[in-house]
Amino acid sequence: MIAVAYIGREPMDAVSIGNRGLNYGDGVFETMRVHRGVLPLWPRHLARLREGAGRLGIAMPDVGVMEARIAELMAGADAGVLKLLLTRGEGGRGYAPPLDAVPTWMLSLLPLPAPQGALRLHACETRLAMQPALAGIKHCNRLEQVLGRAEAERAGCDEGLMRDMVGNPVCATSANLLVLRDGRWTTPPVDLCGVAGVLRGWLLDQGLVALASLSMDDVESAQALALCNAVRGILPVRALGAREWPTHPAVADLQKRLAMATPMFSEARETA
Amino acid sequence: MIAVAYIGREPMDAVSIGNRGLNYGDGVFETMRVHRGVLPLWPRHLARLREGAGRLGIAMPDVGVMEARIAELMAGADAGVLKLLLTRGEGGRGYAPPLDAVPTWMLSLLPLPAPQGALRLHACETRLAMQPALAGIKHCNRLEQVLGRAEAERAGCDEGLMRDMVGNPVCATSANLLVLRDGRWTTPPVDLCGVAGVLRGWLLDQGLVALASLSMDDVESAQALALCNAVRGILPVRALGAREWPTHPAVADLQKRLAMATPMFSEARETA
Repeated sequence: MIAVAYIGREPMDAVSIGNRGLNYGDGVFETMRVHRGVLPLWPRHLARLREGAGRLGIAMPDVGVMEARIAELMAGADAGVLKLLLTRGEGGRGYAPPLDAVPTWMLSLLPLPAPQGALRLHACETRLAMQPALAGIKHCNRLEQVLGRAEAERAGCDEGLMRDMVGNPVCATSANLLVLRDGRWTTPPVDLCGVAGVLRGWLLDQGLVALASLSMDDVESAQALALCNAVRGILPVRALGAREWPTHPAVADLQKRLAMATPMFSEARETA
Repeated sequence: MIAVAYIGREPMDAVSIGNRGLNYGDGVFETMRVHRGVLPLWPRHLARLREGAGRLGIAMPDVGVMEARIAELMAGADAGVLKLLLTRGEGGRGYAPPLDAVPTWMLSLLPLPAPQGALRLHACETRLAMQPALAGIKHCNRLEQVLGRAEAERAGCDEGLMRDMVGNPVCATSANLLVLRDGRWTTPPVDLCGVAGVLRGWLLDQGLVALASLSMDDVESAQALALCNAVRGILPVRALGAREWPTHPAVADLQKRLAMATPMFSEARETA
């Protein structure tokens, strides 16, 4: 991993103990796929970063400077994952956010994860709390996802399906959920909990997927399930607990449509 | 502020960008009052730290080493605040916690906050999400408190009263709530949201305060309100929004009982 932190424009080796990200998870982040030295989905990631920073009242760093440092870091990288982490910075009296905080932001370049076959999901016992003030944005308060993912690992599964407090499915720990019903792809809303994934947003905007509130019965009786995120693209699901699904052509069709628009995902499709 | 971080037993100057505390708020903390070179409430803070680490599956550092470093840091400090922050450490694939993570823990010594008079509370619009998996422990996912405290500051108030999603009062952003009704002190449960404060625990154990689920009407019609935390002791409340309370002798009585058992709080009482 190559990593660098900035306070304003100044590069730093590491992060101070007083950083509010470390103390309170007081920040937002983006995890983005690098393809041939660029970030094809950058405008959508930047929009979500702005939205998250705005809702939390965190100042946005100079975007030009940020883009220049990102370009330097990923120059020559054919493929990889670029993580951008933005925290409110330091200071303040306890939880009270300082009005003049200089945000701290960090970049790290990581290898692209190995391609995976169809996924086995675990239905997590850890539920997502309903919090409209934080829903949708990719903030750094992620203990629910950490607990959910730990459950999935203990169950020997690839990912965890997370439900809200009512018991309705919302998303996976690090991907959104796509559910094929009556030949149409749907995805649950994320206005009370969950993250509005960048690839989910693209699929909704293209009309390839529609919003739908779903029950666990709806998911278990679906024709097919898939997960999506901006690093791995569209991933077929082969099992949720004891329920198994054979390969469904609608998954390959969705992968093909995505690959046509965003070629970086064509490789993932071939290896999936 | 004097601050130091440890990975296992090794002292570090700062924290790596890959620390899970920074990335996910994957940690717990304690904020403790130093009095004449010791931490009078340490056994209760340590118990809550263990409880939080246990519930999150974070390994506890060697307590003997931790206590020795704490003793060194606060040697000669007549008064102050010692913050202990414990994160899961580094590594893991995304949210998945590594099974062999070496926890990172940090100590910082800060000045004791200035004494305050009776407090003015703001009823925060930001609600506390109901999450039994995280309720009670002092974990590092604190965006709700950051947003609530920012609201209180904007309203020109000293603290924010936080309600759950149903609208029932739970606690302040960094203190528990004490409500005097029919001559008895009560405090709301924290099994769905909120933090089980160390001083709140002491007051409950002494039988000086009883658990009670309360509505906003109950709070607004109370004989007196107070807040409590392990740094400031018991703080009288003079207003919640437009509702004001005169000084009530039950507050001074509770402060006196606390000061008799834990002399470090006697000064706070006199200056309050």
